[in-house]
Amino acid sequence: MSFYSDQKKFFFAVDCVLFSYNDCGLNILLSKRMYEPFKDKWSLVGGFVNENESAEEAAKQVLKSFTANDNIYMEQLYAFTDIGRETTQRTISLTYFALIKIQEYKQPVEKEDCAKWFPIDKLPELIAEHAKILEFAKERIKYRAAKQPLLFELLPDKFTILQLHTLYEKVFNIQFDRRNIDRKLKQSNILVKLPEKDKAGSRRGAFYFKLNEKELNNFNEFGNIVPLKYHLSM
Amino acid sequence: MSFYSDQKKFFFAVDCVLFSYNDCGLNILLSKRMYEPFKDKWSLVGGFVNENESAEEAAKQVLKSFTANDNIYMEQLYAFTDIGRETTQRTISLTYFALIKIQEYKQPVEKEDCAKWFPIDKLPELIAEHAKILEFAKERIKYRAAKQPLLFELLPDKFTILQLHTLYEKVFNIQFDRRNIDRKLKQSNILVKLPEKDKAGSRRGAFYFKLNEKELNNFNEFGNIVPLKYHLSM
Repeated sequence: MSFYSDQKKFFFAVDCVLFSYNDCGLNILLSKRMYEPFKDKWSLVGGFVNENESAEEAAKQVLKSFTANDNIYMEQLYAFTDIGRETTQRTISLTYFALIKIQEYKQPVEKEDCAKWFPIDKLPELIAEHAKILEFAKERIKYRAAKQPLLFELLPDKFTILQLHTLYEKVFNIQFDRRNIDRKLKQSNILVKLPEKDKAGSRRGAFYFKLNEKELNNFNEFGNIVPLKYHLSM
Repeated sequence: MSFYSDQKKFFFAVDCVLFSYNDCGLNILLSKRMYEPFKDKWSLVGGFVNENESAEEAAKQVLKSFTANDNIYMEQLYAFTDIGRETTQRTISLTYFALIKIQEYKQPVEKEDCAKWFPIDKLPELIAEHAKILEFAKERIKYRAAKQPLLFELLPDKFTILQLHTLYEKVFNIQFDRRNIDRKLKQSNILVKLPEKDKAGSRRGAFYFKLNEKELNNFNEFGNIVPLKYHLSM
């Protein structure tokens, strides 16, 4: 029989893997740890949970403090609870992954010194098990993105087909058959073509598209471009 | 800047939704709470996490204490962290769902008085937010079972096609087109027909099948019997 008085208490923190996407690829936000253990090392953005907030509220607050944005797509990822995952005090870490449309990101001044976006293929060494948390997040995103229109949370509201192609290729780290993608996109009807063009890439330009919110249930049609193993990996 | 000394600590518990399946349908294991708050009310099986164990070890220990079985399929489900989710002391609950082949279940004597299997459609009132946790578990299982051969964790090692049909129908609460299922099963090659028959159901009997571990990657072929909405629900 367990009574509260017999039980131990634990520190409880949130750690967030915040992804963004630009023409160079995927990035994640890291912050430099200002206290021991791991002082001056890079870590995922995170913080302790306070008495007067849920973990979700704490995670939202962390993301807001770094981006001045409180409408960021976020999902609970996994709780890391192993003994000895921090060097001084046992701390439970509840992790989240989050996706931001980089165009909406505004870094507040007071955080500039200690936070930085890093390309996902050029990361510094991360503290404790944060590299493992990142791997979990990457796997979860592939799993979700194979089935749901999740990656559009990383694109601006209007985007070119080339941006969409490249995003999927970066996330899954494979070359897709682009004609197949285009056929699936047409079949699924999840995109609406806009009259405007992006002229930055070529003289002829490329039409912008936006998401067709009413047809998102057809995403599966498009999501099937992703090889089966990503549908099954988690 | 956050230092350990400024931070609050929290109680940390695990709660497990343990499912089993028999000819009458799906069941979950509940235990009668022996202490306040909620004394004598039914709850999911769970317990506090100790200093010397991870949450996963704690959850395994809970399942073992009720079933005398330490090889039960288990997945981390979700952390519930809201303020005020328990009436006296703030407690973080990390939840797991677990699936047991009921044939392997042996209830240890000392737990008999305070734990009981309940049919999932005839549950007593559950404490705190345990009904919500159960709903989460049911949704997660549908999501997983639409894509992966998860539900075989609830079947005995050899089973009839009728048992398999009925299990899927109970979990998804819909009538499947059984001829379609049989065709998909054949295409996917995920089952091996055994020479033995189950003669309990009819004089002619029904052949037993077992899982073809080498062909499990073909599960998707069979899993597509599940309507799209369950592929997209979480």
